[in-house]
Amino acid sequence: MGNCCERASNFFGPQKNTNVRVSLPAVCFVWQIAMIILFGVFIRYDDESDVRLWLQFKRENNITSDIENDFYFRYPSFQDVHVMIFVGFGFLMTFLKRYSFGGVGFNFLIAAFGLQWALLMQGWFHALDLTTGKISIGVESLINADFCCAGSLIAFGALLGKVSPVQLMVVTLFGVTLFAVEEYIILDLLHCRDAGGSMVIHCFGGYYGLAISWVLYRPNLHLSKRLNGSVYHSDVFAMIGTLFLWMFWPSFNSAITDHGDGQHRAAINTYLALASSVLTTVAISSMSQKKGNLDMVHIQNATLAGGVAMGTAAEFMITPYGSLIVGFCTGIISTFGYLFVTPFLERALKLQDTCGVHNLHAVPGMLGGFIGAIVAAAATEEVYSREGLELVFDFEGRFANRSVGTQGGFQAAGTCVSIAFGLVGGTIVGFILRFPIWGDPADDNCYDDEAYWEVPEDEETLPPVLEYNNHMIHKHQDM
Amino acid sequence: MGNCCERASNFFGPQKNTNVRVSLPAVCFVWQIAMIILFGVFIRYDDESDVRLWLQFKRENNITSDIENDFYFRYPSFQDVHVMIFVGFGFLMTFLKRYSFGGVGFNFLIAAFGLQWALLMQGWFHALDLTTGKISIGVESLINADFCCAGSLIAFGALLGKVSPVQLMVVTLFGVTLFAVEEYIILDLLHCRDAGGSMVIHCFGGYYGLAISWVLYRPNLHLSKRLNGSVYHSDVFAMIGTLFLWMFWPSFNSAITDHGDGQHRAAINTYLALASSVLTTVAISSMSQKKGNLDMVHIQNATLAGGVAMGTAAEFMITPYGSLIVGFCTGIISTFGYLFVTPFLERALKLQDTCGVHNLHAVPGMLGGFIGAIVAAAATEEVYSREGLELVFDFEGRFANRSVGTQGGFQAAGTCVSIAFGLVGGTIVGFILRFPIWGDPADDNCYDDEAYWEVPEDEETLPPVLEYNNHMIHKHQDM
Amino acid sequence: MGNCCERASNFFGPQKNTNVRVSLPAVCFVWQIAMIILFGVFIRYDDESDVRLWLQFKRENNITSDIENDFYFRYPSFQDVHVMIFVGFGFLMTFLKRYSFGGVGFNFLIAAFGLQWALLMQGWFHALDLTTGKISIGVESLINADFCCAGSLIAFGALLGKVSPVQLMVVTLFGVTLFAVEEYIILDLLHCRDAGGSMVIHCFGGYYGLAISWVLYRPNLHLSKRLNGSVYHSDVFAMIGTLFLWMFWPSFNSAITDHGDGQHRAAINTYLALASSVLTTVAISSMSQKKGNLDMVHIQNATLAGGVAMGTAAEFMITPYGSLIVGFCTGIISTFGYLFVTPFLERALKLQDTCGVHNLHAVPGMLGGFIGAIVAAAATEEVYSREGLELVFDFEGRFANRSVGTQGGFQAAGTCVSIAFGLVGGTIVGFILRFPIWGDPADDNCYDDEAYWEVPEDEETLPPVLEYNNHMIHKHQDM
Repeated sequence: MGNCCERASNFFGPQKNTNVRVSLPAVCFVWQIAMIILFGVFIRYDDESDVRLWLQFKRENNITSDIENDFYFRYPSFQDVHVMIFVGFGFLMTFLKRYSFGGVGFNFLIAAFGLQWALLMQGWFHALDLTTGKISIGVESLINADFCCAGSLIAFGALLGKVSPVQLMVVTLFGVTLFAVEEYIILDLLHCRDAGGSMVIHCFGGYYGLAISWVLYRPNLHLSKRLNGSVYHSDVFAMIGTLFLWMFWPSFNSAITDHGDGQHRAAINTYLALASSVLTTVAISSMSQKKGNLDMVHIQNATLAGGVAMGTAAEFMITPYGSLIVGFCTGIISTFGYLFVTPFLERALKLQDTCGVHNLHAVPGMLGGFIGAIVAAAATEEVYSREGLELVFDFEGRFANRSVGTQGGFQAAGTCVSIAFGLVGGTIVGFILRFPIWGDPADDNCYDDEAYWEVPEDEETLPPVLEYNNHMIHKHQDM
Repeated sequence: MGNCCERASNFFGPQKNTNVRVSLPAVCFVWQIAMIILFGVFIRYDDESDVRLWLQFKRENNITSDIENDFYFRYPSFQDVHVMIFVGFGFLMTFLKRYSFGGVGFNFLIAAFGLQWALLMQGWFHALDLTTGKISIGVESLINADFCCAGSLIAFGALLGKVSPVQLMVVTLFGVTLFAVEEYIILDLLHCRDAGGSMVIHCFGGYYGLAISWVLYRPNLHLSKRLNGSVYHSDVFAMIGTLFLWMFWPSFNSAITDHGDGQHRAAINTYLALASSVLTTVAISSMSQKKGNLDMVHIQNATLAGGVAMGTAAEFMITPYGSLIVGFCTGIISTFGYLFVTPFLERALKLQDTCGVHNLHAVPGMLGGFIGAIVAAAATEEVYSREGLELVFDFEGRFANRSVGTQGGFQAAGTCVSIAFGLVGGTIVGFILRFPIWGDPADDNCYDDEAYWEVPEDEETLPPVLEYNNHMIHKHQDM
Repeated sequence: MGNCCERASNFFGPQKNTNVRVSLPAVCFVWQIAMIILFGVFIRYDDESDVRLWLQFKRENNITSDIENDFYFRYPSFQDVHVMIFVGFGFLMTFLKRYSFGGVGFNFLIAAFGLQWALLMQGWFHALDLTTGKISIGVESLINADFCCAGSLIAFGALLGKVSPVQLMVVTLFGVTLFAVEEYIILDLLHCRDAGGSMVIHCFGGYYGLAISWVLYRPNLHLSKRLNGSVYHSDVFAMIGTLFLWMFWPSFNSAITDHGDGQHRAAINTYLALASSVLTTVAISSMSQKKGNLDMVHIQNATLAGGVAMGTAAEFMITPYGSLIVGFCTGIISTFGYLFVTPFLERALKLQDTCGVHNLHAVPGMLGGFIGAIVAAAATEEVYSREGLELVFDFEGRFANRSVGTQGGFQAAGTCVSIAFGLVGGTIVGFILRFPIWGDPADDNCYDDEAYWEVPEDEETLPPVLEYNNHMIHKHQDM
């Protein structure tokens, strides 16, 4: 197959050099060594994972049972989130006919790097003990690190098939860094609530990826058109990703919410919003085709919009039917996005968005931020009780006197901050990625695992079409 | 392939109209809007997921730790059940060579609708507060909603490839309704125990699907014979479903059993029964083939029979070796079913059962019901202790004086109720589905995703090398 | 396809008889019946899964909440481990182009048998109540049973495609038996700590499989060379196995560690080691190819080395950066193993290792044992506190006065014991497997599901037959 690629390149002009034999190992080694050094300087176990500190903690707080360790509140949710990051995002990106290795493999690589860098960046901003100069990590830190990676993995969705693994490492390095900063501004300075990350994860990640993709616009991408699509089984692989994201999204939105009712409510709300999204996605997808056929692109993506849009409001008292309404609307909006907005963006804005992250993350995330603002502003003591309001919105310390109306305003402001960080940060990173040193593929060589992977030769997959041809051939011969 | 299908239809007479462009969106929109309205009227958070009520609940019951919230007892099991419903059932039905989209996609659609309708139906029957007129939902409600969907998904297994998505929505609407009623009769009126749903889920769902399929008998289904089979990779996809069902079945049977020893014991019993089923399934499958080869159909399905059959007895003190015996027998029975009963049913009873739900759900479920009856009747105070008997069989209130013998009788009666509901309900629904308005496929167009999905053209799985050869071949011919 | 196989065999000399129609059912039935009898005699529910005993246990220990039941500490981890055993190991072995059924199917069979035999063997050595003569089982027993199977599944990896299912049952029978003995020596007599089983699981299992494979050396295996490789989609299937192993390894290493900080810390350490392995694996894999392309074999396997190597030290205070260093080194060593050691072993030692278990389990497991020894010897009261040391290393009873230095020595000794058991045991089992009664395939018939499975005829995946046609076509054209 190598030959045919070269032929192609000779025909379409000189092939870009996709050789990453020096750059990729260099980046992996240097950054991993840096991680080890920085972890050595900064990262320690927290009170609940350090044997000496936990024994001390139990004594000081009269804790009689180990079940009170945060591990038992959060670990099951952590594992669900972990599956979403590696299998969910990874397999969702296997849908391309000849880029399944890249989809799941590069997702694996950048998440494995990103979570380490995230532990440091988020630690410096949220968990740095200024007296000791150390960062304490526990299971909640692992969940947040996975969340932080999600931002960069979403960006990867917009770039899928058009960039080199080295570029993806750069996207992740900056993506995690920007994430930690915007998260600090939104959660700490503006004191927003965003348990499931509609704002800080999906909205930021979506616009971050779109901005990068916009800067990296490829005018001749049509030369790779033959590979920019799925085959039957690659679509089934992608459904593995879709379903694990869909099933575990209640864990995603409830993983770091308050113990007890908080996690419980967030899971219920997300479960309902997702169910509602599925029906409206199917409805719009069917309406859009001549014979009412369903489009796998919609089923694989828009069904998840309800989970994205509930990321902020899931822990609030949005009510079960409120959750259904959120899923109902976002399923419609997301499917319309795949039908009309993505083609429009490519035509009018010269924006190439492989997975349509605009429709699954950017817009539903933004909507989720504003939904959260409205639900927060509408909170009442009748519904929450005074104590409940303080718990859910964390009105304490210097925020003790904040009103729900003010909180709603800040939630909306937070959404804008995440958009701004995504667009500005993505644009800058995009220009960095345009340096001709990253080994990215040529326009006629995109969406092709041949560029970065050793691909087995498939004598064995032959479509019926060809069998048919063979019959024809025999016929010809008989003549 | 579109062309070839049309040719086929021209040849075999006029193609039925599978256009669902109006009916499918209409059903999805109308029913989802109905869900939103009904949820608005009836559904509220329960004491453990509502912030105000949970704070109050903790005060009133002197609960000091949030870990006492039912969320932490049941959420991990819920997520396992959720995976079984969407990935387990979904991928188990991807085994057909050209119906993988329909198998996993329609499973996704009907489960997403079914769980909403289930929350309402089960709520009205089990959790309606007559003073407030509201239904309180928590994590246990979500598990029960997933369970309720399972009944309809099992029925889907019998109809796989022969019905339209609109018909499946109707199957689910009535399936969930019937489920809630039979469940109310069996669990509340007869006061049966059926934690894993051998009776209410598997036995009902199996016979429900078989009755529908019997009414929808297609005399010329042989015209689709070419597509009623697997290909190598579709069988591997189906194993994803099999394994997630098999691994998480202990969670399925223990998800709603009593806290503590109840969940613990149910998981152990199911784990053992399933392991035992695998060995007897392999044994019978190997004996059935000339060279002792194994048949994927048996491995994909009959290995699960032990879990189905333990659905009622799992929470009882059936003993570990008792569990092994249950798995041993049901593995054999189920495999024999695939070898002899399914072909017989099709020949003699004109009953077409695509996935063989008769052998995996109907019969093992019925057996599970009777096994539960026997184990209940054999319970003694020596083994359970008096207090234990009351806990396990919930002998309190007006059932305080019920003997284990009586309980066994009622368990057996419950099994019969579930069979009756399945057969009668399924027959009625079957006749409803025969109206010519549902867009079902023609006999020569079954098991084919082309009918309801946009299917990618697979010439692309053809490696350039081979394409190249073909060009050469054609060239030769021209010479 | 049967035809072509026979043709091949006629050409390459008489086909070995792979008929297992008598032996496989016989083994399954006899052993399963033996399990039932032995379970009847020995296995009972433990204090936390037996309703009477649990009520009594709660009274005696003043336990007020069911959440204290070990089920809630361990069940989520158990389910993750269960997924690793059946989907993780199973799908990791689907990478061969025509042995995916055997990879996932035989893994399913031997694990289902192995876990039953493991409950008995481990029970006799660890949980036999000498007064009653009974073995009490609970969720921790199930986890240990799954662990015990892992040893034999690892051995399966070295034998993949070259043995019959009957031979695999024998490998598992002896593998589980040897495992229980070496585990007893290492954990009870030497009083080693090995929560994640670097020594008892991976090191033993790896060398056990290698020794068997060495005895079963096939000089003419090159005759099956055409099938000893992957196709595009079989590599994607294998990534399902890789990712579920990778994601859930923190649960594997923390599943049976001490409640509270022990499980918490083990999960964090494993999470970090695995992340670090991914980057170094990618780096070495890329360096090894001309154009810097990545090799799926490395990504599928070496990325897991960090988890294997943390099996012993995960519960110790190895520190987060220590975990990163472990992953860093083992990722490099494992990838080098795939590049250079496996080919060398085959050439020089006549050792055929299909999945390269030498590089993923044997060597990283051995290293993990020694890493554990060093970390144990380096433990100090400053870090652990006196009480912490006693808890983590279980210095009580007759080991109350053991020093950490001594502990380190015993940990190292334990590693050697596991190697010895693997090599000696494997050699003996290998010779047993050479009796000509097991129905193993001929050298030209390896890596082929045709031998033991009913394989669907894939119009879609071109069988050799069709390849053959193509040759014919060319011939015709030449005429």
